[in-house]
Amino acid sequence: MKTPSSLDFLAEALRRLPGIGPKSAQRIAYHLMQHDRDGAAMLGRALTEAVERIHHCASCNTFTENEICETCLDPERDAALLCVVETPADQLMIEQTLTYKGMYFVLMGRLSPLDGIGPRDIHLERLMRRATDGVVQEVVLATNFTNEGEATAHYISETLKARGLKVSRLARGVPVGGELEYVDAGTIARAMLDRRST
Amino acid sequence: MKTPSSLDFLAEALRRLPGIGPKSAQRIAYHLMQHDRDGAAMLGRALTEAVERIHHCASCNTFTENEICETCLDPERDAALLCVVETPADQLMIEQTLTYKGMYFVLMGRLSPLDGIGPRDIHLERLMRRATDGVVQEVVLATNFTNEGEATAHYISETLKARGLKVSRLARGVPVGGELEYVDAGTIARAMLDRRST
Ligand SMILES: [Zn+2]
Ligand SMILES: [Zn+2]
Repeated sequence: MKTPSSLDFLAEALRRLPGIGPKSAQRIAYHLMQHDRDGAAMLGRALTEAVERIHHCASCNTFTENEICETCLDPERDAALLCVVETPADQLMIEQTLTYKGMYFVLMGRLSPLDGIGPRDIHLERLMRRATDGVVQEVVLATNFTNEGEATAHYISETLKARGLKVSRLARGVPVGGELEYVDAGTIARAMLDRRST
Repeated sequence: MKTPSSLDFLAEALRRLPGIGPKSAQRIAYHLMQHDRDGAAMLGRALTEAVERIHHCASCNTFTENEICETCLDPERDAALLCVVETPADQLMIEQTLTYKGMYFVLMGRLSPLDGIGPRDIHLERLMRRATDGVVQEVVLATNFTNEGEATAHYISETLKARGLKVSRLARGVPVGGELEYVDAGTIARAMLDRRST
C-alpha cells in the first residue's frame, strides 16, 4: 500500500515550514485534505502569489510588491532620519508607537557569526550607501536588545561614525534581552524619545 | 505603513493550518519570503496539486488519486475480510505489521457526539453497503482504543451483527487509551493475530 504521491509530496513540502516534523506534516496533510480543502487551496494560492509578488524595497530593503515601498515614497517623512531595524515586524512595531516619522533600513537579520551570518547577509554595504547619501543626518539603531542585536548595533555604529555620521540607539527603556516585537508600544515610544548618541 | 497585501494574505492563509496563531503565521510568512522562497513555491504547488488530485476511494474511502485505490484493486488481497480504521495513517500502521491481507474501510474520523460527529460523518451507510456485499465474511474493527474509538467500534459492531455479519475487534494488546498511530508495529501485529469476536 502506498500513500498517493501528491499527498506524499504535500507532507514533504509542509516540512519546509519551521518547526514541522514528519509526523505533524502527515497529520496536517490529512487534516487539510479531509477537513479544509478550501483552506489548502487558499494557502496554495497565497504562497504562489507571495513568491511571485514579494521582493525587497530597493531603498529600505523591507518587503514590498513595488520597486520602492510606500514608506520610502511618502513625502511627509523626514528623510534626514534613518532608523535601522532587524525585521519588518520590528519596523511595524515602531510605526505603531507613532513617535517616529523618519525613514527605515531593514537588515532582514542580525550579525550572528556562530550561524555564519556576516555583514554581507544583513546588507551592510547597501546600508552604508543609503546612510551616506548626503540627506541622512542621523541613523537611529533599533536592533533588538539581545546579544546579537547589540553586537550588530555596535558594529554598524562604529562603521557609520567612522564616516562622520551621527548615530543614536534606542534608549534602554527596552528590557535587556527583550525582542522589540514582544515589547509593548509604550515602552518602545519612551525608548524612541530617549534615544541617545552612541 | 502597510504590510504588502500578498504578505498579509499569506499570513492569513497560514492560520488555516492547525495550531498556528496570528503571531506564528506572520513569522512563518516572513521566514519563507526571506529564507525559503523555493520551499514556499514548492508548498504552494503541493497544496494546489493535492486539492486537485486527492479524493476518496469509491470503495474503501481512503485518499487516492484514482477512482478506486491500489489496495482495493489488488487481486492478491482477501476480499472476505474487511478492516475498519479511523484514518489512512492507521491503515498504514496496520499494513506495516504484515499480518493482514484483507480489505479496508477508512472512516476518516470517529463518532464524537460532543463535537457533533455522527454516523453520517464517518460514512456508516457506505460501510454497511460495503460490508453486506455478500463477499465480506468478517469485519475487523481496528478503531483506536480511546473512548471515542471504542464507542465507534461498539456502534458499528451492533449494527453489523444485526445484519448477521461476523465482527471482530483487535485484541487488547494495544494499550488502553492508546492511538494506533503511536503504537509499535509488534504490538499491533499481536493484537491483529489475537483479534476476537464481539
Ligand atoms: Zn522602502
Ligand atoms: Zn480503496
